[in-house]
Amino acid sequence: MKILSDPRKINQLIRRAKRNGKSIGFVPTMGALHAGHLSLIRQAKRDNDLAVVSIFVNPAQFGPQEDLKRYPRPLKNDLALCRKEKVDLVFIPEDKMMYPEGFVTFVNVEGLSGRLCGAARPGHFRGVTTVVTKLLNIISADVLYLGQKDAQQAVIISRMVEDLNFAVKIVVMPIVRGNNGLALSSRNVYLSKSQREEAQVLFKALHLAKLMIRHGQFNSSRIIEKMKELISRKKQAKIDYVAIVDPKSLGPLKKIGRDCLVCLAVKFGKTRLIDNLRITCG
Amino acid sequence: MKILSDPRKINQLIRRAKRNGKSIGFVPTMGALHAGHLSLIRQAKRDNDLAVVSIFVNPAQFGPQEDLKRYPRPLKNDLALCRKEKVDLVFIPEDKMMYPEGFVTFVNVEGLSGRLCGAARPGHFRGVTTVVTKLLNIISADVLYLGQKDAQQAVIISRMVEDLNFAVKIVVMPIVRGNNGLALSSRNVYLSKSQREEAQVLFKALHLAKLMIRHGQFNSSRIIEKMKELISRKKQAKIDYVAIVDPKSLGPLKKIGRDCLVCLAVKFGKTRLIDNLRITCG
Repeated sequence: MKILSDPRKINQLIRRAKRNGKSIGFVPTMGALHAGHLSLIRQAKRDNDLAVVSIFVNPAQFGPQEDLKRYPRPLKNDLALCRKEKVDLVFIPEDKMMYPEGFVTFVNVEGLSGRLCGAARPGHFRGVTTVVTKLLNIISADVLYLGQKDAQQAVIISRMVEDLNFAVKIVVMPIVRGNNGLALSSRNVYLSKSQREEAQVLFKALHLAKLMIRHGQFNSSRIIEKMKELISRKKQAKIDYVAIVDPKSLGPLKKIGRDCLVCLAVKFGKTRLIDNLRITCG
Repeated sequence: MKILSDPRKINQLIRRAKRNGKSIGFVPTMGALHAGHLSLIRQAKRDNDLAVVSIFVNPAQFGPQEDLKRYPRPLKNDLALCRKEKVDLVFIPEDKMMYPEGFVTFVNVEGLSGRLCGAARPGHFRGVTTVVTKLLNIISADVLYLGQKDAQQAVIISRMVEDLNFAVKIVVMPIVRGNNGLALSSRNVYLSKSQREEAQVLFKALHLAKLMIRHGQFNSSRIIEKMKELISRKKQAKIDYVAIVDPKSLGPLKKIGRDCLVCLAVKFGKTRLIDNLRITCG
């Protein structure tokens, strides 16, 4: 397993591999790898000649009041996991290599980036799409692996890849959950024991939505109301949003049709958790 | 010479050529080719195995009050010129292929895009950087050829290529001028005979700046004043800006140092002309 920090060097290495006919699967991460990331890495290994993982806590996607500084960075453990999964290349750039002095260029997916999480985190998705553009240019992968956990991110990046003609295929892998239903997240380490217990309500709320739809309730506001009621029973839960949206436009659905994305963001203490469930009917 | 309109098809063709070790030189144009464009095309032919020219009047870089509709589109002549120069591939996409319904992603080089021409043409450079990102992803060239005539555009694209890690080298070719000193531009066809005569003053004004600097005048505002005075003698001239700026940051230079860019935009009737001169001292 090769570990590189210089964008030019890894770009040269990958270009050479591509000239030799190798296909490249790419998993961009912020490190603090968990079983969710590993499912992406394993799929990248299965589908391609070479699997590339980037580990970069991207400052451009954190707001000034957010957790950039305390975001977990267990690098040794991350590298051990990558080695175990037989990752071929790990890219770990430094901040100043990615955003040198004078950096002023940003990629923005308008509209989509302001909705849902974008409303509470202005500039977040602009930071995501900018760094993913950079990473796609550096890694020039054939396939990009994303997690459904960050559903809005996956939609926005897919839109960007199409709009800007990136020659990369996107594969979105399902959410990996703990036994308690809690979606795996690098931020779960922030939770106290009681918060972690309370946070199980998120998956229960998503499941409630599914049941209600299965039983013929197609009025979104009714469902959202019941979900909020359920979540609000938990003392430490502070709802940011609960929404039922079109899976592509992320626009709110008043009436549920064939396909919808139920998604939510809820804070437990300082820790903001997100989760979602795609529900198709008929 | 192959002519293609489908982004995917030309992308596949170029990827195959690159796998076979061919180098790609790319000249993006809006058509209405003149000797300025041809100097770029010739350089692309000299430097690379394959020369690719795109012809696309990019709607995203025109303001609502601008000349998108009447912009010259002499396609037959353009293709004849490309054939004569032995261009290998011409890419002529349709608007709806480049900006399909639902397109929402834009690339913006902040700061630089608001200065000089950007002040009079809000959104213009965002349109330029967005389409160039798309074209670079579609063509994936080794070398991108730009004209110094559009000096701000060249600076902004260079900044973008560096910021977003595009693996492309940029070559900026000198301005080509007519016998009268007028910089060649596809928009010169709009000029009446008297406007064309008056427009010769632009190069004279740039030359005046050079003379003043050579004679030890390093105070920008003094030089700009004299340039404006000279230009204003022409009846139909309406100055948009005359500026002396740092060639990289495009920020105004009060005192001229080793290297400066003298640039201007002047309207003759409805036709907005730009020109510039890079001046190095000592």
